[in-house]
Amino acid sequence: MEKAVVAALMVVAAVAALLPAAMAGVVDFCVADLAAAPTPAGYPCKKEAALTVDDFVFSGLSKAANTTNIIKAAVTPAFDAQFPAVNGLGISLARLDLAPGGVIPLHVHPNGNEVLVVTQGAIAAGFVSSSNAVYYKTLHKGDVMVFPQGLLHFQINAGGRSAVALVSFSSPNPGLQITSIALFGSSFPSSLVSGTTFLSPAEVKRLKAVLGGTN
Amino acid sequence: MEKAVVAALMVVAAVAALLPAAMAGVVDFCVADLAAAPTPAGYPCKKEAALTVDDFVFSGLSKAANTTNIIKAAVTPAFDAQFPAVNGLGISLARLDLAPGGVIPLHVHPNGNEVLVVTQGAIAAGFVSSSNAVYYKTLHKGDVMVFPQGLLHFQINAGGRSAVALVSFSSPNPGLQITSIALFGSSFPSSLVSGTTFLSPAEVKRLKAVLGGTN
Amino acid sequence: MEKAVVAALMVVAAVAALLPAAMAGVVDFCVADLAAAPTPAGYPCKKEAALTVDDFVFSGLSKAANTTNIIKAAVTPAFDAQFPAVNGLGISLARLDLAPGGVIPLHVHPNGNEVLVVTQGAIAAGFVSSSNAVYYKTLHKGDVMVFPQGLLHFQINAGGRSAVALVSFSSPNPGLQITSIALFGSSFPSSLVSGTTFLSPAEVKRLKAVLGGTN
Amino acid sequence: MEKAVVAALMVVAAVAALLPAAMAGVVDFCVADLAAAPTPAGYPCKKEAALTVDDFVFSGLSKAANTTNIIKAAVTPAFDAQFPAVNGLGISLARLDLAPGGVIPLHVHPNGNEVLVVTQGAIAAGFVSSSNAVYYKTLHKGDVMVFPQGLLHFQINAGGRSAVALVSFSSPNPGLQITSIALFGSSFPSSLVSGTTFLSPAEVKRLKAVLGGTN
Amino acid sequence: MEKAVVAALMVVAAVAALLPAAMAGVVDFCVADLAAAPTPAGYPCKKEAALTVDDFVFSGLSKAANTTNIIKAAVTPAFDAQFPAVNGLGISLARLDLAPGGVIPLHVHPNGNEVLVVTQGAIAAGFVSSSNAVYYKTLHKGDVMVFPQGLLHFQINAGGRSAVALVSFSSPNPGLQITSIALFGSSFPSSLVSGTTFLSPAEVKRLKAVLGGTN
Amino acid sequence: MEKAVVAALMVVAAVAALLPAAMAGVVDFCVADLAAAPTPAGYPCKKEAALTVDDFVFSGLSKAANTTNIIKAAVTPAFDAQFPAVNGLGISLARLDLAPGGVIPLHVHPNGNEVLVVTQGAIAAGFVSSSNAVYYKTLHKGDVMVFPQGLLHFQINAGGRSAVALVSFSSPNPGLQITSIALFGSSFPSSLVSGTTFLSPAEVKRLKAVLGGTN
Repeated sequence: MEKAVVAALMVVAAVAALLPAAMAGVVDFCVADLAAAPTPAGYPCKKEAALTVDDFVFSGLSKAANTTNIIKAAVTPAFDAQFPAVNGLGISLARLDLAPGGVIPLHVHPNGNEVLVVTQGAIAAGFVSSSNAVYYKTLHKGDVMVFPQGLLHFQINAGGRSAVALVSFSSPNPGLQITSIALFGSSFPSSLVSGTTFLSPAEVKRLKAVLGGTN
Repeated sequence: MEKAVVAALMVVAAVAALLPAAMAGVVDFCVADLAAAPTPAGYPCKKEAALTVDDFVFSGLSKAANTTNIIKAAVTPAFDAQFPAVNGLGISLARLDLAPGGVIPLHVHPNGNEVLVVTQGAIAAGFVSSSNAVYYKTLHKGDVMVFPQGLLHFQINAGGRSAVALVSFSSPNPGLQITSIALFGSSFPSSLVSGTTFLSPAEVKRLKAVLGGTN
Repeated sequence: MEKAVVAALMVVAAVAALLPAAMAGVVDFCVADLAAAPTPAGYPCKKEAALTVDDFVFSGLSKAANTTNIIKAAVTPAFDAQFPAVNGLGISLARLDLAPGGVIPLHVHPNGNEVLVVTQGAIAAGFVSSSNAVYYKTLHKGDVMVFPQGLLHFQINAGGRSAVALVSFSSPNPGLQITSIALFGSSFPSSLVSGTTFLSPAEVKRLKAVLGGTN
Repeated sequence: MEKAVVAALMVVAAVAALLPAAMAGVVDFCVADLAAAPTPAGYPCKKEAALTVDDFVFSGLSKAANTTNIIKAAVTPAFDAQFPAVNGLGISLARLDLAPGGVIPLHVHPNGNEVLVVTQGAIAAGFVSSSNAVYYKTLHKGDVMVFPQGLLHFQINAGGRSAVALVSFSSPNPGLQITSIALFGSSFPSSLVSGTTFLSPAEVKRLKAVLGGTN
Repeated sequence: MEKAVVAALMVVAAVAALLPAAMAGVVDFCVADLAAAPTPAGYPCKKEAALTVDDFVFSGLSKAANTTNIIKAAVTPAFDAQFPAVNGLGISLARLDLAPGGVIPLHVHPNGNEVLVVTQGAIAAGFVSSSNAVYYKTLHKGDVMVFPQGLLHFQINAGGRSAVALVSFSSPNPGLQITSIALFGSSFPSSLVSGTTFLSPAEVKRLKAVLGGTN
Repeated sequence: MEKAVVAALMVVAAVAALLPAAMAGVVDFCVADLAAAPTPAGYPCKKEAALTVDDFVFSGLSKAANTTNIIKAAVTPAFDAQFPAVNGLGISLARLDLAPGGVIPLHVHPNGNEVLVVTQGAIAAGFVSSSNAVYYKTLHKGDVMVFPQGLLHFQINAGGRSAVALVSFSSPNPGLQITSIALFGSSFPSSLVSGTTFLSPAEVKRLKAVLGGTN
């Protein structure tokens, strides 16, 4: 045998001796097996042997979502449920599309900090802190803004044409609670809504009708 | 010298040899030095040599707070700012006092899960999940309820007499954002509030006046 | 169709577009499926669709436990095994009942910091730090005391009548190791106990008999 | 006084009673004070009173960086050092500019998982796992790819025109170690480089010269 | 009955009352069930009832590994896959054997900091930081050195006889990526390797042959 | 100028463009500045510019400690206070020396899991779990044993000659509470000790004398 071939075989043997540990267990990533029950740390992992590069690639953010709705806007997530590769990695993404006049209503991510980058158009965005300070600004293409976990925030198209933003979260599933939907588009009893918000019963009734809530 | 005394001295020497490491550094606790700038993990620690048992004891929850206000309720916190011993320990407390008719308005803790125990009276409490499911119930003395981080929740006195609850949080400072105060008691511009909530401009204007907000 | 109804339908459509991500995966909570094998981060989650408000409410702390035993005391836990809603939330509770003369013997929670609130009577409580400093005090109704993870601590009824405390932990299952039970109420060989504690073999033998230990 | 004014004043008083805790301590965010020494959890926080919306906004990613260099590429970071608002939030960003023929050489982020979104052009990207599996693909506008922490990965312009990507990290400062720069552009002794990589001494010498390394 | 027996029975009853919570759930450890799918936080736990002391003891590091290979060295891991007791405990070990002339090639642990102790012989070891500073030194028996997560580092026998080191990691499975094996012993296409490393195509081709890589 | 030199300069410029972010902030490590106040996450970091390889190397474990004391044993720590490089890295070490007949008394590490490797002689070691199961075994050279955080455990020389072990912890400062020293070598009042342990007042008095305790 040629010397290089022998050397190669010897090295391969050495490598085999070096690597058994690294090849077992959870090391580098944990692509979610969405069919299994999740745990507080995320989903169980698919076996690496079954993975291809397509498990690590997601194309669902490449197209604008349909914004022909009352808010003239849409959120397209790449959370663990859509993009299982982010499971356990402490990060996820979403795409915001805002048609002219579009609004992402006031909402909260219960479980993740957010960083937004405007990739097209102009967006007015803001949040309110625990001490009720209000921070808002009109952002243009390339501008970045932070929205800390659990705080009320919003995004509004601030230009005459469609705007797009990419948002990243410090969690594979940050959650999303849109305040007005939680109150008026749910089964939250109207008397409890008005009793816990200072809103007038009439306004609550009106919004329950508009947003399809019950009770 | 007596044998026991000699033994004692020898053991003390042995112990001195065993313990130098344990006595330096941050080991068991990190009572906050509130005069120093905090970090993402909490405040710098006071030196243990300067501590007494009173650094680990807090008496501020022993009395009912004043509830002669419009919500007929009060929250008394034992967070890191009030009780520096919880700094770095991943836990804190608060006391809720609800006079008859009292309400803790809809709010969110951006940074901590909550567990509530009713210690007097009856309290109706609930929360809305990210999927807009509504969970609420009337709780009686000794009942415990969980309110996960970042989700809208409320507490209302559900009996004819004063109610009291103790709440614990999975953080030394969970934060507190009362939705209606964030929107109507702040400088959040009225047009942005109505534009991001579906509330009518008239209702926003009314509540801005009631809750002392500006803009 | 009426205008409001049309609007409602349109908003519902918009909301449906906004929410698919939030409704899947582990977002807000992870109520334990106790029938499944736990992981280092806790139990797998029950599906949200199967939950009701009663999954988030626990009534097991509402009554005094039986204290007609040799320590005249009892601990009633609301850990993940009793109250599956705390799974993954970094918090749990327990109730302490101390009859007159009652004692919670020296113990350690290997996996969680503790905060205690006296809700009835008076309790003398204390802990020893890694540097062997001793912190103890008699606490009255409403007083709060911190006991850091892994440190020896105790609670003793310090009044003439029954005392009650609520304790919170920075973990859904803090564990509990009562020193004397671990040493004298277990199969820990007597010679190893005396050899590693400085206790006399006679005292170890006596306590093995009293506390039901073997070997 | 008018009734509404009285009510407003009463509510403001109530709110003042509710909020003292929330206004102190580290609650929602911790904008880095870069002049202070960092800790393992990040920098100490600036006081909220000193902050404006501009502390939460970063415009440094809006323009293409200069790519007239040998790799025809550039990385523009928005890590804690550039964008102090991400301190403590577990997230950061960067912009990649790749001129035609541009390459981000093989590198590792020691402290953060990465998610990349192509915002212009086409990029061939890939990584090697701990088990030496190789995952690579040509990505187009809107495609997302994950690069787990600590694994070798690269990005190459795969089209005829400039390409741009936004990358997010699960850390406010993921670090960056470009393998060839670490080996050949540093003071790493040439004999150690060849002795620990199987590279020929001649090739090491050549690259030391090209990349400006010493020893 | 004798008084002591009665007392013992009473205490046992008391203990039974104290301990139900502690005996259920995940408390102290989580010995991996390697047959179950892992999660981002590690493997599901075996039931404590099925465990013996041998689950907590590992003898696989007691003997020198075979170093008759091209690197004259071997790594013997005690990670979660070999020693299931470390699952969930944030720690693991390995043994390094370096025959005279032996080398552990440049590598990275993507998921864990390392501390090395020389237990026999002399070892030259070093790492390169994110800022391309190079830290290396010859270590003798008893010397300890730190290698932070995700950074290139190496170990070389620096004496005339066999050297041994024990290494600990801040993770139950730190991973292991040997740079030259990842590049030249894998299916990483040669043109991509040279295109992303500045290495000459000839050198890449040579090493692909030596290390058994393809493409 | 020669072509290679030009290329080198251009690459250096490119690298300079790539690296500003990586060179600032806390990236790879955080060598403790022990003169500054610690935080819950550890000490503030020294500047990297001031570091040399000796900051990452510790020689304090190379020699046997003095075991001419009553326990015929000694613990030599390499925790953050002795070895500042482990600050923030989630790991630390110690060396155990046990002369013939030597014992490390029953103790607990409140803040870190432990893995022990015998490097000389034989050691009997064991721990008690939260459910009072006792796990112990005689370990020989090369054997590894796990001791989970917060649980009582011990080590005893089990051979006729000196034994040595290296122990690693999943924390830069695991703490150390030796049960008998905490109870009998401290100011813990004797009546509280006997009242909370079932030990006889006479035995407590005897041990207070032996171990130098007060009260």
